[in-house]
Amino acid sequence: MCNKPLILITNDDGYAAAGIKALARTVADIADIYVVAPDGARSGAACAITSSVPVSYRELKAQNDYPSGVRLFACSGTPVDCVKLAWDNILPRRPDLLLSGINHGDNASISAHYSGTMGAVFEGCMKGIPSIGLSLYLQRGQRYEDYPVSDDTLAAIARLCEQVITEGLPIDTCLNINLPVSDVFKGWRVCRQARGRWEAEWATASNPHGVKAYWLTGVFNDLEPQSDDTDFAALRAGFASIVPTTIDMTAYGAMEHVNKLTS
Amino acid sequence: MCNKPLILITNDDGYAAAGIKALARTVADIADIYVVAPDGARSGAACAITSSVPVSYRELKAQNDYPSGVRLFACSGTPVDCVKLAWDNILPRRPDLLLSGINHGDNASISAHYSGTMGAVFEGCMKGIPSIGLSLYLQRGQRYEDYPVSDDTLAAIARLCEQVITEGLPIDTCLNINLPVSDVFKGWRVCRQARGRWEAEWATASNPHGVKAYWLTGVFNDLEPQSDDTDFAALRAGFASIVPTTIDMTAYGAMEHVNKLTS
Repeated sequence: MCNKPLILITNDDGYAAAGIKALARTVADIADIYVVAPDGARSGAACAITSSVPVSYRELKAQNDYPSGVRLFACSGTPVDCVKLAWDNILPRRPDLLLSGINHGDNASISAHYSGTMGAVFEGCMKGIPSIGLSLYLQRGQRYEDYPVSDDTLAAIARLCEQVITEGLPIDTCLNINLPVSDVFKGWRVCRQARGRWEAEWATASNPHGVKAYWLTGVFNDLEPQSDDTDFAALRAGFASIVPTTIDMTAYGAMEHVNKLTS
Repeated sequence: MCNKPLILITNDDGYAAAGIKALARTVADIADIYVVAPDGARSGAACAITSSVPVSYRELKAQNDYPSGVRLFACSGTPVDCVKLAWDNILPRRPDLLLSGINHGDNASISAHYSGTMGAVFEGCMKGIPSIGLSLYLQRGQRYEDYPVSDDTLAAIARLCEQVITEGLPIDTCLNINLPVSDVFKGWRVCRQARGRWEAEWATASNPHGVKAYWLTGVFNDLEPQSDDTDFAALRAGFASIVPTTIDMTAYGAMEHVNKLTS
């Protein structure tokens, strides 16, 4: 007897977000689906793990917007906790693919470092699961609900998932996908992470007790807007960007410089 | 008039931890020191940022174990928040170096991804600050207080800091240093991130209300124990490991494979 492929889906916006439901519907026909996702928003959770308190999870009845047959679990922890819990305690067998998203807001360039969506993807990659993060490049104030990912984009995602299940990904490599807001799917662009910087990151406010409080905000500055091989260049041109991303952060090209510093 | 170098120090164990005080004492003679650190433990915070609530900070009188002249700030946020706050709101000028640590417990191999210590380092690197994370390779149950970093190791750290201030680090590159527990400093080993995996990650308990709760734990499995060029190999041999680490996570070697998947 041959099992269908098993896909683990998670995100950092919580199990009730529009993006994760769209993702579950997209791949419902090609695999058995387990959704193990945070019970609420965990934006900016990165690869954070919960170690000072215990975490818990519960199975929920999959709601209307989820396809039938999905097993749905809500977890009190971070996106990485979700993957670790699924792996050790929830999944009936080794998953063939991990999907994370579709995130409300992009995770291109260095934002991948802060992203809970991508944190879950890195965790899957560390466990040897082919893992893909998907995020939607929205402008500030735009909502996923008002700019849903187009049907032909979702169809292209389903085809790519089938390819990755069949062909796999190179060792220690996962995919960071960002999608433009668009009515039509213009195509994939395999590209590199843009160099960029977040600036002017704090808005100041006083709380009711007179204590100065700082809200994180910021303006993203693409440091190489002239390059055409970056994720942001692809997005600006209307393409869906795919950055092959490694969990081996060794800067192999810097070995000689650092050897000199220590000799 | 020529300013002394400025060093920003942070960590994920909080400003009161033994490791950060040792680090401040180590570089007190070579620079003006600003400590901007969490007000308590933030282990496993990775690159997490605080976006759903505001953060605050306050200046404290530097305590006995800090060297005189240190400016000390405690922050309600994550290690990354500390760096962002320091950069935009606290530091009097651009820092010449960021140090994070000395962490209680190692951040070798893939643990760098979960580490709040290294999260702060990545943030410094994103801002163009030469940035170094330092962690102590303790066995489970060992405490920093009982296995402090030796004086000659601290002296070697001070020399390296001076070198990095003078020579800088390659673009988008920071250093992930792990220190063995040792009475003598045996030397630096510039090496790569070991391939590894955390396994058996959950201990189960029931809370007083009868709900099953999961505590994160785990056993680290070095997937290439025979290699001699990894951080864990260096640590096992009694050397201090330095992994030059990049914030550009693009898997350049995987471009062709992924291009085929999408064509």
